[in-house]
Amino acid sequence: MILDDAALDTMFRTARTYSSWSATPVTDERLRTIYDLAKLGPTSANASPARFVFCRSGEARERLAGCVSAGNAAKVRAAPVTVIIGMDLEFHEQLPRLFPHADARSWFAGKPDAIRETAVRNSSLQGAYLMLAARALGIDCGPMSGFDKAAVDAAFFAGTTVETNFICALGHGTDDALFPRSPRLSFDEAAQLR
Amino acid sequence: MILDDAALDTMFRTARTYSSWSATPVTDERLRTIYDLAKLGPTSANASPARFVFCRSGEARERLAGCVSAGNAAKVRAAPVTVIIGMDLEFHEQLPRLFPHADARSWFAGKPDAIRETAVRNSSLQGAYLMLAARALGIDCGPMSGFDKAAVDAAFFAGTTVETNFICALGHGTDDALFPRSPRLSFDEAAQLR
Repeated sequence: MILDDAALDTMFRTARTYSSWSATPVTDERLRTIYDLAKLGPTSANASPARFVFCRSGEARERLAGCVSAGNAAKVRAAPVTVIIGMDLEFHEQLPRLFPHADARSWFAGKPDAIRETAVRNSSLQGAYLMLAARALGIDCGPMSGFDKAAVDAAFFAGTTVETNFICALGHGTDDALFPRSPRLSFDEAAQLR
Repeated sequence: MILDDAALDTMFRTARTYSSWSATPVTDERLRTIYDLAKLGPTSANASPARFVFCRSGEARERLAGCVSAGNAAKVRAAPVTVIIGMDLEFHEQLPRLFPHADARSWFAGKPDAIRETAVRNSSLQGAYLMLAARALGIDCGPMSGFDKAAVDAAFFAGTTVETNFICALGHGTDDALFPRSPRLSFDEAAQLR
Protein backbone atom coordinates (compact mmCIF):
# COMPACT_ATOMS: atom_id res chain seq x y z
CA MET A 1 0.00 0.00 0.00
CA ILE A 2 1.39 3.35 -1.10
CA LEU A 3 -0.53 6.54 -0.40
CA ASP A 4 -1.94 8.32 -3.43
CA ASP A 5 -0.86 11.79 -4.49
CA ALA A 6 -3.77 13.53 -2.76
CA ALA A 7 -2.90 11.87 0.55
CA LEU A 8 0.83 12.64 0.18
CA ASP A 9 -0.08 16.25 -0.55
CA THR A 10 -2.28 16.41 2.57
CA MET A 11 0.37 14.89 4.82
CA PHE A 12 3.52 16.48 3.40
CA ARG A 13 3.64 18.24 0.04
CA THR A 14 0.99 20.96 0.27
CA ALA A 15 0.65 20.99 4.08
CA ARG A 16 1.98 24.19 5.62
CA THR A 17 2.62 25.69 9.04
CA TYR A 18 -0.24 28.14 9.65
CA SER A 19 -0.39 31.18 11.87
CA SER A 20 -3.78 32.54 10.79
CA TRP A 21 -7.02 30.62 11.33
CA SER A 22 -10.64 30.54 10.23
CA ALA A 23 -13.36 30.66 12.88
CA THR A 24 -14.28 27.01 12.24
CA PRO A 25 -13.88 25.13 15.52
CA VAL A 26 -12.22 21.77 16.05
CA THR A 27 -14.59 19.44 17.87
CA ASP A 28 -13.59 17.54 20.99
CA GLU A 29 -14.43 14.36 19.10
CA ARG A 30 -11.92 15.29 16.39
CA LEU A 31 -9.24 15.95 19.03
CA ARG A 32 -9.89 12.52 20.55
CA THR A 33 -9.64 10.88 17.13
CA ILE A 34 -6.35 12.66 16.44
CA TYR A 35 -4.96 11.37 19.74
CA ASP A 36 -6.21 7.85 19.05
CA LEU A 37 -4.19 7.78 15.82
CA ALA A 38 -1.10 9.49 17.25
CA LYS A 39 -0.88 7.16 20.27
CA LEU A 40 -0.20 4.24 17.90
CA GLY A 41 3.12 5.63 16.67
CA PRO A 42 6.27 3.92 17.96
CA THR A 43 8.11 5.03 21.10
CA SER A 44 11.08 3.45 22.85
CA ALA A 45 9.81 0.49 24.88
CA ASN A 46 6.31 1.80 24.10
CA ALA A 47 6.98 4.29 26.90
CA SER A 48 4.62 6.91 25.48
CA PRO A 49 5.93 9.77 27.64
CA ALA A 50 3.95 12.56 25.94
CA ARG A 51 1.07 14.24 27.74
CA PHE A 52 -1.24 16.60 25.85
CA VAL A 53 -3.26 19.57 27.09
CA PHE A 54 -5.69 20.79 24.43
CA CYS A 55 -6.44 24.44 25.24
CA ARG A 56 -9.70 25.30 23.50
CA SER A 57 -11.70 27.29 26.08
CA GLY A 58 -11.21 31.05 26.13
CA GLU A 59 -9.78 30.79 29.64
CA ALA A 60 -7.20 28.12 28.75
CA ARG A 61 -6.11 29.88 25.56
CA GLU A 62 -5.72 33.19 27.40
CA ARG A 63 -3.73 31.51 30.16
CA LEU A 64 -1.41 29.97 27.56
CA ALA A 65 -1.17 33.22 25.56
CA GLY A 66 0.19 34.87 28.70
CA CYS A 67 3.14 32.43 28.72
CA VAL A 68 4.36 32.72 25.12
CA SER A 69 6.39 35.20 23.07
CA ALA A 70 4.60 38.32 21.84
CA GLY A 71 4.42 37.06 18.27
CA ASN A 72 3.03 33.72 19.35
CA ALA A 73 0.46 35.16 21.78
CA ALA A 74 -1.60 36.50 18.88
CA LYS A 75 -1.42 33.07 17.23
CA VAL A 76 -2.57 31.28 20.40
CA ARG A 77 -5.48 33.73 20.78
CA ALA A 78 -6.49 33.31 17.13
CA ALA A 79 -6.33 29.51 16.87
CA PRO A 80 -9.40 27.51 17.97
CA VAL A 81 -7.10 25.08 19.81
CA THR A 82 -3.48 25.12 20.90
CA VAL A 83 -2.15 21.86 22.30
CA ILE A 84 0.67 21.75 24.82
CA ILE A 85 2.85 18.70 24.14
CA GLY A 86 4.30 17.81 27.53
CA MET A 87 6.43 14.93 28.80
CA ASP A 88 5.92 12.97 32.00
CA LEU A 89 9.24 12.48 33.79
CA GLU A 90 7.69 9.54 35.62
CA PHE A 91 6.62 7.82 32.39
CA HIS A 92 8.49 4.71 33.49
CA GLU A 93 5.88 4.04 36.19
CA GLN A 94 3.54 3.04 33.34
CA LEU A 95 6.00 0.56 31.80
CA PRO A 96 4.82 -2.58 33.63
CA ARG A 97 1.54 -2.09 31.77
CA LEU A 98 2.80 -0.56 28.51
CA PHE A 99 5.76 -2.94 28.00
CA PRO A 100 4.89 -6.20 29.73
CA HIS A 101 7.60 -8.17 27.88
CA ALA A 102 10.44 -7.07 30.18
CA ASP A 103 11.15 -5.16 33.39
CA ALA A 104 11.55 -1.91 31.48
CA ARG A 105 10.75 0.20 34.55
CA SER A 106 14.14 -0.79 35.97
CA TRP A 107 15.90 0.65 32.91
CA PHE A 108 14.83 4.13 34.06
CA ALA A 109 13.99 4.19 37.78
CA GLY A 110 16.57 6.31 39.62
CA LYS A 111 18.30 7.32 36.36
CA PRO A 112 17.26 10.94 35.76
CA ASP A 113 19.51 11.44 32.70
CA ALA A 114 18.08 8.38 30.94
CA ILE A 115 14.57 9.46 31.90
CA ARG A 116 14.97 12.97 30.51
CA GLU A 117 16.70 11.87 27.30
CA THR A 118 13.99 9.30 26.60
CA ALA A 119 11.18 11.69 27.56
CA VAL A 120 12.44 14.49 25.31
CA ARG A 121 13.14 12.30 22.27
CA ASN A 122 9.97 10.26 22.47
CA SER A 123 7.56 13.04 23.38
CA SER A 124 8.96 14.92 20.38
CA LEU A 125 8.28 11.88 18.18
CA GLN A 126 4.75 11.76 19.61
CA GLY A 127 4.29 15.47 18.91
CA ALA A 128 5.18 14.80 15.29
CA TYR A 129 2.75 11.88 15.15
CA LEU A 130 0.05 14.18 16.55
CA MET A 131 0.71 16.82 13.91
CA LEU A 132 0.64 14.31 11.07
CA ALA A 133 -2.47 12.64 12.50
CA ALA A 134 -4.14 16.07 12.61
CA ARG A 135 -3.23 16.70 8.98
CA ALA A 136 -4.53 13.25 8.04
CA LEU A 137 -7.88 14.27 9.53
CA GLY A 138 -8.04 17.63 7.77
CA ILE A 139 -6.74 19.77 10.63
CA ASP A 140 -3.88 22.22 10.03
CA CYS A 141 -1.00 22.74 12.46
CA GLY A 142 1.08 25.64 13.67
CA PRO A 143 3.88 24.36 15.91
CA MET A 144 5.69 26.90 18.12
CA SER A 145 8.68 26.77 20.42
CA GLY A 146 8.78 30.47 21.37
CA PHE A 147 7.39 30.40 24.92
CA ASP A 148 8.43 30.67 28.57
CA LYS A 149 8.76 27.02 29.55
CA ALA A 150 8.77 27.71 33.29
CA ALA A 151 5.61 29.79 32.93
CA VAL A 152 3.76 27.14 30.90
CA ASP A 153 4.88 24.47 33.37
CA ALA A 154 3.60 26.57 36.28
CA ALA A 155 0.31 27.43 34.59
CA PHE A 156 -0.57 23.93 33.40
CA PHE A 157 1.58 21.32 35.15
CA ALA A 158 2.07 22.64 38.72
CA GLY A 159 2.27 19.81 41.22
CA THR A 160 2.79 17.16 38.52
CA THR A 161 5.82 15.39 37.03
CA VAL A 162 5.02 16.75 33.56
CA GLU A 163 7.09 19.43 31.80
CA THR A 164 6.40 21.28 28.57
CA ASN A 165 8.14 20.23 25.34
CA PHE A 166 6.51 22.41 22.67
CA ILE A 167 3.10 23.82 21.68
CA CYS A 168 1.09 23.59 18.48
CA ALA A 169 -1.94 25.50 17.23
CA LEU A 170 -4.63 23.38 15.57
CA GLY A 171 -7.48 24.48 13.33
CA HIS A 172 -8.33 25.39 9.77
CA GLY A 173 -5.53 27.59 8.48
CA THR A 174 -6.08 30.57 6.20
CA ASP A 175 -3.59 31.70 3.59
CA ASP A 176 -3.50 35.40 4.41
CA ALA A 177 -0.43 35.24 6.71
CA LEU A 178 1.38 32.48 4.84
CA PHE A 179 4.97 33.01 3.74
CA PRO A 180 6.08 31.26 0.56
CA ARG A 181 7.51 27.90 1.64
CA SER A 182 11.10 28.28 2.77
CA PRO A 183 13.82 26.18 1.12
CA ARG A 184 14.81 22.78 2.46
CA LEU A 185 18.16 21.03 2.45
CA SER A 186 18.58 18.75 -0.56
CA PHE A 187 19.11 15.02 -0.05
CA ASP A 188 22.82 15.41 -0.73
CA GLU A 189 23.15 18.22 1.82
CA ALA A 190 21.37 16.38 4.65
CA ALA A 191 21.80 12.69 3.89
CA GLN A 192 24.30 10.06 2.80
CA LEU A 193 23.91 6.64 1.21
CA ARG A 194 26.48 4.34 2.78
CA MET B 1 -9.25 16.40 2.58
CA ILE B 2 -9.34 13.54 5.07
CA LEU B 3 -7.33 10.38 4.45
CA ASP B 4 -9.36 7.25 3.73
CA ASP B 5 -9.34 4.22 6.00
CA ALA B 6 -6.71 2.38 3.96
CA ALA B 7 -4.32 5.31 4.20
CA LEU B 8 -4.95 5.77 7.96
CA ASP B 9 -4.28 2.06 8.42
CA THR B 10 -1.02 2.33 6.48
CA MET B 11 0.18 5.35 8.42
CA PHE B 12 -1.07 4.51 11.92
CA ARG B 13 -3.62 1.80 12.62
CA THR B 14 -2.11 -1.36 11.17
CA ALA B 15 1.49 -0.11 10.91
CA ARG B 16 3.79 -1.89 13.36
CA THR B 17 7.39 -1.72 14.53
CA TYR B 18 9.21 -4.58 12.78
CA SER B 19 12.33 -6.46 13.80
CA SER B 20 12.27 -9.16 11.12
CA TRP B 21 12.61 -8.39 7.42
CA SER B 22 12.10 -9.93 4.00
CA ALA B 23 15.01 -9.96 1.55
CA THR B 24 13.31 -7.36 -0.66
CA PRO B 25 15.67 -4.39 -0.93
CA VAL B 26 14.80 -0.72 -0.61
CA THR B 27 16.07 1.17 -3.63
CA ASP B 28 18.18 4.30 -3.35
CA GLU B 29 15.48 6.07 -5.32
CA ARG B 30 12.91 5.13 -2.68
CA LEU B 31 15.18 6.42 0.09
CA ARG B 32 15.54 9.73 -1.74
CA THR B 33 11.77 9.98 -2.16
CA ILE B 34 11.24 9.29 1.55
CA TYR B 35 13.68 12.08 2.41
CA ASP B 36 12.03 14.47 -0.06
CA LEU B 37 8.70 14.02 1.75
CA ALA B 38 10.16 14.10 5.27
CA LYS B 39 12.14 17.29 4.68
CA LEU B 40 8.87 19.18 4.20
CA GLY B 41 7.70 18.64 7.79
CA PRO B 42 7.85 21.66 10.10
CA THR B 43 10.88 22.48 12.27
CA SER B 44 11.53 25.47 14.48
CA ALA B 45 12.63 28.37 12.25
CA ASN B 46 12.85 25.76 9.47
CA ALA B 47 16.20 24.86 11.05
CA SER B 48 16.10 21.26 9.78
CA PRO B 49 18.88 20.02 12.09
CA ALA B 50 18.53 16.31 11.24
CA ARG B 51 21.18 14.54 9.20
CA PHE B 52 20.58 11.03 7.87
CA VAL B 53 23.02 8.22 7.11
CA PHE B 54 21.31 5.39 5.25
CA CYS B 55 23.39 2.26 5.91
CA ARG B 56 22.53 -0.22 3.15
CA SER B 57 25.88 -1.67 2.07
CA GLY B 58 27.12 -4.74 3.89
CA GLU B 59 30.10 -2.77 5.18
CA ALA B 60 28.00 0.09 6.60
CA ARG B 61 25.45 -2.23 8.20
CA GLU B 62 28.21 -4.31 9.79
CA ARG B 63 29.93 -1.19 11.09
CA LEU B 64 26.65 -0.01 12.64
CA ALA B 65 25.84 -3.47 14.02
CA GLY B 66 29.12 -3.31 15.94
CA CYS B 67 27.89 -0.20 17.79
CA VAL B 68 24.45 -1.36 18.98
CA SER B 69 23.08 -3.58 21.74
CA ALA B 70 23.24 -7.35 21.21
CA GLY B 71 19.52 -7.60 20.53
CA ASN B 72 19.62 -4.77 18.03
CA ALA B 73 22.75 -6.02 16.19
CA ALA B 74 20.77 -8.91 14.71
CA LYS B 75 18.08 -6.49 13.60
CA VAL B 76 20.60 -4.17 11.92
CA ARG B 77 22.20 -7.13 10.13
CA ALA B 78 18.81 -8.44 8.97
CA ALA B 79 17.28 -5.18 7.72
CA PRO B 80 18.10 -4.06 4.18
CA VAL B 81 18.66 -0.51 5.44
CA THR B 82 19.15 1.07 8.84
CA VAL B 83 19.16 4.86 8.92
CA ILE B 84 21.04 6.83 11.53
CA ILE B 85 19.07 9.95 12.44
CA GLY B 86 21.70 12.45 13.52
CA MET B 87 21.60 16.12 14.45
CA ASP B 88 24.01 18.83 13.33
CA LEU B 89 25.00 21.03 16.27
CA GLU B 90 25.95 23.74 13.76
CA PHE B 91 22.54 23.67 12.08
CA HIS B 92 22.25 27.41 12.71
CA GLU B 93 24.91 28.11 10.09
CA GLN B 94 22.27 27.15 7.48
CA LEU B 95 19.65 29.56 8.84
CA PRO B 96 20.47 32.56 6.64
CA ARG B 97 19.39 30.37 3.72
CA LEU B 98 16.68 28.25 5.41
CA PHE B 99 14.97 31.11 7.28
CA PRO B 100 15.61 34.29 5.30
CA HIS B 101 12.82 36.23 7.09
CA ALA B 102 14.92 37.07 10.15
CA ASP B 103 18.43 36.85 11.57
CA ALA B 104 17.70 33.44 13.10
CA ARG B 105 21.37 32.47 13.18
CA SER B 106 21.87 34.99 15.99
CA TRP B 107 19.24 33.20 18.11
CA PHE B 108 21.64 30.25 18.40
CA ALA B 109 25.24 31.29 17.69
CA GLY B 110 27.28 30.97 20.91
CA LYS B 111 24.33 29.48 22.84
CA PRO B 112 25.14 25.77 23.21
CA ASP B 113 22.14 24.98 25.42
CA ALA B 114 19.68 26.50 22.94
CA ILE B 115 21.46 24.74 20.07
CA ARG B 116 21.29 21.33 21.72
CA GLU B 117 17.67 21.67 22.86
CA THR B 118 16.56 22.74 19.39
CA ALA B 119 18.67 20.08 17.67
CA VAL B 120 17.34 17.25 19.84
CA ARG B 121 13.68 18.27 19.64
CA ASN B 122 13.63 19.06 15.94
CA SER B 123 15.78 16.17 14.73
CA SER B 124 13.41 13.90 16.66
CA LEU B 125 10.44 15.51 14.89
CA GLN B 126 12.25 14.96 11.58
CA GLY B 127 12.92 11.33 12.50
CA ALA B 128 9.20 10.87 13.03
CA TYR B 129 8.45 12.55 9.70
CA LEU B 130 10.92 10.17 8.04
CA MET B 131 9.24 7.11 9.58
CA LEU B 132 5.77 8.24 8.56
CA ALA B 133 7.00 9.17 5.06
CA ALA B 134 8.50 5.68 4.77
CA ARG B 135 5.20 4.09 5.79
CA ALA B 136 3.36 6.32 3.32
CA LEU B 137 5.58 4.86 0.59
CA GLY B 138 5.09 1.26 1.65
CA ILE B 139 8.29 0.88 3.69
CA ASP B 140 8.11 -0.52 7.23
CA CYS B 141 10.12 0.88 10.14
CA GLY B 142 11.91 -0.51 13.17
CA PRO B 143 13.17 2.37 15.34
CA MET B 144 15.79 1.59 17.98
CA SER B 145 17.46 3.54 20.77
CA GLY B 146 19.56 0.70 22.21
CA PHE B 147 23.05 1.58 20.95
CA ASP B 148 26.36 3.04 22.08
CA LYS B 149 26.00 6.68 21.05
CA ALA B 150 29.71 7.46 21.38
CA ALA B 151 30.55 4.46 19.20
CA VAL B 152 28.05 5.40 16.47
CA ASP B 153 29.28 9.00 16.59
CA ALA B 154 32.90 7.81 16.21
CA ALA B 155 32.07 5.33 13.43
CA PHE B 156 29.94 7.65 11.29
CA PHE B 157 30.38 11.27 12.37
CA ALA B 158 34.05 11.59 13.38
CA GLY B 159 35.41 15.04 12.58
CA THR B 160 31.95 16.53 12.04
CA THR B 161 29.52 18.55 14.17
CA VAL B 162 26.86 15.82 13.88
CA GLU B 163 25.81 13.55 16.76
CA THR B 164 23.53 10.52 16.74
CA ASN B 165 19.92 10.84 17.93
CA PHE B 166 18.39 7.42 17.16
CA ILE B 167 18.47 4.70 14.50
CA CYS B 168 15.71 3.04 12.49
CA ALA B 169 15.62 -0.08 10.35
CA LEU B 170 13.77 0.25 7.04
CA GLY B 171 12.47 -2.49 4.76
CA HIS B 172 9.60 -4.86 4.26
CA GLY B 173 8.72 -6.31 7.65
CA THR B 174 7.68 -9.91 8.18
CA ASP B 175 5.26 -11.00 10.87
CA ASP B 176 7.25 -13.89 12.34
CA ALA B 177 8.89 -11.88 15.14
CA LEU B 178 5.96 -9.56 15.80
CA PHE B 179 4.56 -9.20 19.31
CA PRO B 180 0.86 -8.48 19.66
CA ARG B 181 0.54 -4.69 19.77
CA SER B 182 1.18 -3.41 23.28
CA PRO B 183 -1.46 -1.29 25.01
CA ARG B 184 -1.50 2.48 24.71
CA LEU B 185 -2.59 5.12 27.20
CA SER B 186 -6.21 6.16 26.70
CA PHE B 187 -7.07 9.74 25.83
CA ASP B 188 -8.11 10.40 29.41
CA GLU B 189 -4.85 9.02 30.77
CA ALA B 190 -2.57 11.04 28.50
CA ALA B 191 -4.59 14.10 27.54
CA GLN B 192 -6.83 16.84 28.89
CA LEU B 193 -9.41 19.09 27.25
CA ARG B 194 -9.10 22.52 28.83
